[in-house]
Amino acid sequence: MLLSGGLDSATVLAIANENYTCHAISFNYRQRHISELTAARKIAEQAGVSYQLIDLDAGVMTGSALTESAIKVPEQLSEGVPVTYVPARNTIFLAHALAIAEVMSSSDIFIGVNAVDYSGYPDCRPAYIEAFTKMANLATKAGAEGRGLIIHTPLIAMSKAEIIRTGTNLGVDYGGTVSCYQADRDGRACGVCDSCRLRRKGFEDSGIEDITRYQ
Amino acid sequence: MLLSGGLDSATVLAIANENYTCHAISFNYRQRHISELTAARKIAEQAGVSYQLIDLDAGVMTGSALTESAIKVPEQLSEGVPVTYVPARNTIFLAHALAIAEVMSSSDIFIGVNAVDYSGYPDCRPAYIEAFTKMANLATKAGAEGRGLIIHTPLIAMSKAEIIRTGTNLGVDYGGTVSCYQADRDGRACGVCDSCRLRRKGFEDSGIEDITRYQ
Repeated sequence: MLLSGGLDSATVLAIANENYTCHAISFNYRQRHISELTAARKIAEQAGVSYQLIDLDAGVMTGSALTESAIKVPEQLSEGVPVTYVPARNTIFLAHALAIAEVMSSSDIFIGVNAVDYSGYPDCRPAYIEAFTKMANLATKAGAEGRGLIIHTPLIAMSKAEIIRTGTNLGVDYGGTVSCYQADRDGRACGVCDSCRLRRKGFEDSGIEDITRYQ
Repeated sequence: MLLSGGLDSATVLAIANENYTCHAISFNYRQRHISELTAARKIAEQAGVSYQLIDLDAGVMTGSALTESAIKVPEQLSEGVPVTYVPARNTIFLAHALAIAEVMSSSDIFIGVNAVDYSGYPDCRPAYIEAFTKMANLATKAGAEGRGLIIHTPLIAMSKAEIIRTGTNLGVDYGGTVSCYQADRDGRACGVCDSCRLRRKGFEDSGIEDITRYQ
């Protein structure tokens, strides 16, 4: 399961961990909000699942506000694909998950993509996940031998408030998650970026207290 | 364009370089035949194209004879998917190529997959490439904005002999390519692995002298 250290994937881990033996993976892609990786490791530890940090080459996912400090993280929602979009990020993440699943003889990948309260990223849409699954089942030895892979997206149709209510019921400690695109080294959120706004609104709509640590 | 340093991708580079401004990429995935990367860099230099080596995490593409020295490289062709299959290799490679293409505003990826004289890898089949293309066009900002990506597979329907004749006509120096799965540090081939056998037979069938350096 893909664990970023944010609110969504922490919820996915809690859901998956109910019925599966989980292996959580995170990626160092030189993201500005590198403190999410400290959060991810802690979340995996608290859930009692194995954890693997994967180091990606620094020269690939460039040109995004999330990987280039020269590009400002926007503080207003924009139309179309935002500058925080990272080129082919979910494809690179899922490709690694696919390799790891094959080595571990697992047929199940969990990812926290969401098509409701999301940021306009093309690689979060249901059609993208369906297409990746089809490709994956043609790509691998497991697929060629008929052991089909499933990509589970338990949050795909939930609002942010529903995600928060679901995770709270499963005991997720959202205070330990980092969603902010420009979180500081201690994981404290800016409160104004796209991701912070969606998260804050989610807590408001859910009626659950927002224990996010702000800067 | 994906450049491994082997015979096939050296031919693809020569073909692509006729009509495109090329950027060649290779991957260090802790392959046993690491000398192919020295060959790749030289081939790119000789073709006058830019070159990028991408470092992949050592803990992902494991469990293959190409990445684990404890697994013997077979010296006989086998039925089904062979032990030299590397989990999700082409998916991870193409995912990186997709990110780089998007950053460079390129709509064209070239890869030397082949469906005729090939080794039984599921991720070399035309159906796999088609599925990857569909997924890629849903994954990216370019795709979302209608600039479709094309994955070019100029070798897909060629025999090894046809590949060798095509490359020879375009001036490819096959003596500088490394196809062997267990090439030594100087890039000299074992002559007996699956890849060496396919290559040697290709030269025999083509009527072109085999200048491969054997151990």
